[in-house]
Amino acid sequence: MSSQRERVEVVEVGLRDGLQILDRVVPTRDKLDWIASEHACGVRQFEVASFVPPKYMPQMADAADVVAGARTISGLGVSVLVPNVKGAVAAIEAGVDSIAIPISVSEAHSLANVKRMPIEMVAQLKEIRKLADQAKTRVRVDAGLSTAFGCTIQGHVSEDAVVTIAQACIDAGADTVGLADTVGYANPAQVSRVFASVRQRIGERLHSAHFHDTRGTGLANVVAALNEGIRSFDSSLGGLGGCPHAPGASGNIATEDLVFMLEAMGYDTGIDLAALIKTQHRLTDWLPGQPLYGKLGLAGVPKNFPHAPQVAA
Amino acid sequence: MSSQRERVEVVEVGLRDGLQILDRVVPTRDKLDWIASEHACGVRQFEVASFVPPKYMPQMADAADVVAGARTISGLGVSVLVPNVKGAVAAIEAGVDSIAIPISVSEAHSLANVKRMPIEMVAQLKEIRKLADQAKTRVRVDAGLSTAFGCTIQGHVSEDAVVTIAQACIDAGADTVGLADTVGYANPAQVSRVFASVRQRIGERLHSAHFHDTRGTGLANVVAALNEGIRSFDSSLGGLGGCPHAPGASGNIATEDLVFMLEAMGYDTGIDLAALIKTQHRLTDWLPGQPLYGKLGLAGVPKNFPHAPQVAA
Repeated sequence: MSSQRERVEVVEVGLRDGLQILDRVVPTRDKLDWIASEHACGVRQFEVASFVPPKYMPQMADAADVVAGARTISGLGVSVLVPNVKGAVAAIEAGVDSIAIPISVSEAHSLANVKRMPIEMVAQLKEIRKLADQAKTRVRVDAGLSTAFGCTIQGHVSEDAVVTIAQACIDAGADTVGLADTVGYANPAQVSRVFASVRQRIGERLHSAHFHDTRGTGLANVVAALNEGIRSFDSSLGGLGGCPHAPGASGNIATEDLVFMLEAMGYDTGIDLAALIKTQHRLTDWLPGQPLYGKLGLAGVPKNFPHAPQVAA
Repeated sequence: MSSQRERVEVVEVGLRDGLQILDRVVPTRDKLDWIASEHACGVRQFEVASFVPPKYMPQMADAADVVAGARTISGLGVSVLVPNVKGAVAAIEAGVDSIAIPISVSEAHSLANVKRMPIEMVAQLKEIRKLADQAKTRVRVDAGLSTAFGCTIQGHVSEDAVVTIAQACIDAGADTVGLADTVGYANPAQVSRVFASVRQRIGERLHSAHFHDTRGTGLANVVAALNEGIRSFDSSLGGLGGCPHAPGASGNIATEDLVFMLEAMGYDTGIDLAALIKTQHRLTDWLPGQPLYGKLGLAGVPKNFPHAPQVAA
C-alpha cells in the first residue's frame, strides 16, 4: 500500500522559525535531542538554525554547532536560513546541505526586517549562488518569498509582485522557490491563485509552501497548495513559535497536525504519527512552560487512523 | 460588489453544541444577550437549544424560554436540536422555525447516545415530520447525520452507511440532510468523497456541514465541502464547547474564524467580522474563565482585509 501513495515532504522548521521568536535560549544539546528524536519518527528535512549575528538573535548563536551535530545523523537534510553573504559563508563552512534565503515581497517588510529592498535581496541571492557553486559539495539555494500573501506593515501585497520576485530569484540562480504566509493572512482561494500564477511562470522550480496558522486557515491553505501540485511543506512541532505581531496567537502550522492530515488524506509522509506525538510531548522537557498550539498533542490519533486511502468518487 | 458575491450561510450552534458540554448553566438572559449581539453582527440562523430532559442536560432546561426570546428578534431563524417525539412536541409548541434531529451513522455511538439504532432514529424523524406538518406554521425538519466521518467508539464509519442513512432520512420526510464530523476525525479528502457520494444520491437536499476542529482540520474540511457545493456551515462563537473525549482539545470550528476565511475567499456571509470579534470578546462576560479556541479573537483582522475578491487564474 505504502508504495502506491504519493509522497509529500514535511520540513521541520521549529528549530529556526519556532525558537527564533522565543525569549529563551535553548541549549545546543536539547536542540540536537529534538532533531534526533524527530528524525527517528521519519522526518528527513530540517531547517535547523539561522546564520545571523548573535547580538540580534542569541537563540541562534550556536548555529554552526547545531549544523555539525545534525550532520552526524544519517539521511538528514540540513537547511539553514541565511539573510546575507556573510551568513552564507559561515553556513557553507559549517557544512549545510541547503541555504534558504528569505526575500520579503513586501517592500515595507523587507526594509523593516533587513534594511534592503526585495530586489536587493535578490542580488544577495545571486552572490550566495556563486559561493554555493564554489563549495566542495553542492549546496542547494532556496528562495523563500515571505509576506507573499499580505503584510502586517503595508497590508496588501500584489500577486504580480510575487510572480516578478519569483522569476527574479530563478534568474539569479535559485534552485527552488517557496511561498510563505509569514503573518497568517492567506486564505485558500488566494493560495490557489498565487501558486497557480507563480507555477505558470517558473514551473517546477516552485517547490514549497510555508503557512502560519495565526487565523486558523493553515491546513486549509495546505490543501489549496496540494491542489496546485505542491508536495513540500514547512511546519513546526507543536506549532512552536507564536506570532510576534499578536501576543498569544499561534504561528507555524504544527508538524503533527500537518502529518495527521496528509496521512489521513492518503499521502505518504514517511512519518510515524504516534511516535511524532511522543516527541511533541518532549517539547515540554526542552521548553518548560512554553505554550504550544498543535491539536494532535491534546486530541490524540483517531480510532479510525490510519485507514486505507480510498479513491475519490 | 456585495451583490456579485456568492452567499454562504453561517449557522451559530454555540448555544446548543457549545453550552451543552459545559458544567455550568448559563442564565437565560445571557443566552438572549448573546443571540441579540450576534444577530446584530449579521448572523441570521441559530441553533439555540436542545429539547431534552433537564435531568440529563440542565444547561438546556430553559429551551422554551430561549426560543421565545429569540423569536422576538426580527429575521432570526430559530432551530433546536430534538432527539425524540416528546422533544419535538415541546419544540413546536415553543414556536421554532426548524428542528434538527441528530441521527448517528455509527451504530455504537447511536446506542450509547440515545439507546436507539440509527434506523430507529429515522423512524422518530418520520413521526416528527407528521407533527411538523400539523403545526400552525410550517416547521422545517433537518436530519443531522452525526459521526459521519468516524466514531470514537467504533472507529471506522462506512461511507456506504452515510449514503444509506441520508436516503432513509429523505424517504422519511426530512427537508434537508447535513453531515457532521462530531468527533473531529474528518480530513478534506474524505469530506470530498462523502459529500460527493451523498449529493449523488439525494441531490440538493444535502444542505449543510458541521465540522469540529479537534485535530486542526476544521476549516480545511469547510473548503472541501465548499468545493462540493455546500453553502451552509455550523460553527460556534469562540469555538466554544471543547471535546468531551479529549480534555483541553477544541470542539466546533469557531464562527469568527469561519467568517474570516469565507469573506477573505470572496464569499458573502452578511456578517460584520469586526463586530463579531467584539461579540466573541463578550463571551468572557457570559462565561467567565471559560477556555475559548477561536484564532481571530487573539490575532485580529488582517490589515489587508477585506480586499476585493479576485477571479481565480
